[in-house]
Amino acid sequence: MNKGMLIVFSAPSGCGKGTMIKEICKHGNYYCSVSATTRDARKGEVDGVNYYFMSDEEFEQKIRENAFLEYAGYCKHYYGTLLSEVDDYLEKGTDVILEIEVQGAMKVMEKRPEAVSVFVVPPSINELRRRLKKRGTETDEVIEERVSEASGEIALSEKYDYVIVNDALEDAVNDFFAIMRAEKLKAEFSGDIINEVLKNA
Amino acid sequence: MNKGMLIVFSAPSGCGKGTMIKEICKHGNYYCSVSATTRDARKGEVDGVNYYFMSDEEFEQKIRENAFLEYAGYCKHYYGTLLSEVDDYLEKGTDVILEIEVQGAMKVMEKRPEAVSVFVVPPSINELRRRLKKRGTETDEVIEERVSEASGEIALSEKYDYVIVNDALEDAVNDFFAIMRAEKLKAEFSGDIINEVLKNA
Repeated sequence: MNKGMLIVFSAPSGCGKGTMIKEICKHGNYYCSVSATTRDARKGEVDGVNYYFMSDEEFEQKIRENAFLEYAGYCKHYYGTLLSEVDDYLEKGTDVILEIEVQGAMKVMEKRPEAVSVFVVPPSINELRRRLKKRGTETDEVIEERVSEASGEIALSEKYDYVIVNDALEDAVNDFFAIMRAEKLKAEFSGDIINEVLKNA
Repeated sequence: MNKGMLIVFSAPSGCGKGTMIKEICKHGNYYCSVSATTRDARKGEVDGVNYYFMSDEEFEQKIRENAFLEYAGYCKHYYGTLLSEVDDYLEKGTDVILEIEVQGAMKVMEKRPEAVSVFVVPPSINELRRRLKKRGTETDEVIEERVSEASGEIALSEKYDYVIVNDALEDAVNDFFAIMRAEKLKAEFSGDIINEVLKNA
């Protein structure tokens, strides 16, 4: 059986990443890896669904056990990707989507050069600003911080394999599926197919 | 303006390459490069459509002028791809499909590493044999020669970027379009998009 494909998926806040992944998982067969964190669960967040919530001690124990594909500390909390959330699924032949921020993505790409990495950008910074404002949940100051962060991240998009512009959701999702379909057609994975074709030659 | 994409397209005889290209050109915007040859035109073949038919002298003059991207001699005749059939279109931003046999394809890939190369295989050698027999135009001996040639070519398919199995025509054509869509989303081509996105950041 073929191993699954590891997909690194990043997008600045406000690019519609969540909606895209929801659509992708509705129409495709992917496992979305659940991250681990030491921050407190917010209202409505469920352990094992949104995150694996852990104490500092638990997280640090897992670090010592080399249980993470990557991890980092932000704002006094740990965030990380458990190897079990990736490899157990890949081994079973399931494609795994790793929704991850840029720095973590770079680490994963280094450790797993075979991963397919996709970066989603908004159609423009002005559109990103508009979308963030529309949410109405953040002050103008926070929005400008987000916009500035996003600009910095977008400048790193060339480190990824593919860049998708999320202007119309359906197009962006179809871009994603085209990438996945093409990746599976790469000649480097065709060995089994070729052997099968050449049988009884 | 972006340059067009050079697409190297190969398939053994009997893989439905002709039908695939017809479908691809019906639904997509591609220029199919016309080869040059010194062999005689067969009944129904039109100069400039099926081939550019040339005399040995004309062909050799063009060789001296470095007018070919690649050329080779088979069965006492020359066959080649004129640079003008490729670069004039790429410069205008048109994607060019180069339908070419394996040896020529290798030369083109070496000279143009940016070319996207696609190899089409039949679902099985037995199916290829069946298709060739169904045509009813060749003797069993010639068919077995074709099958043996095809096997040799298929073994080289790993030199290409992508391998498409032409089992059901529509799926194979959609595979092709997925590859083209994904190729255009590669981060290496996203520079202009990223600059546009970051405008007014």
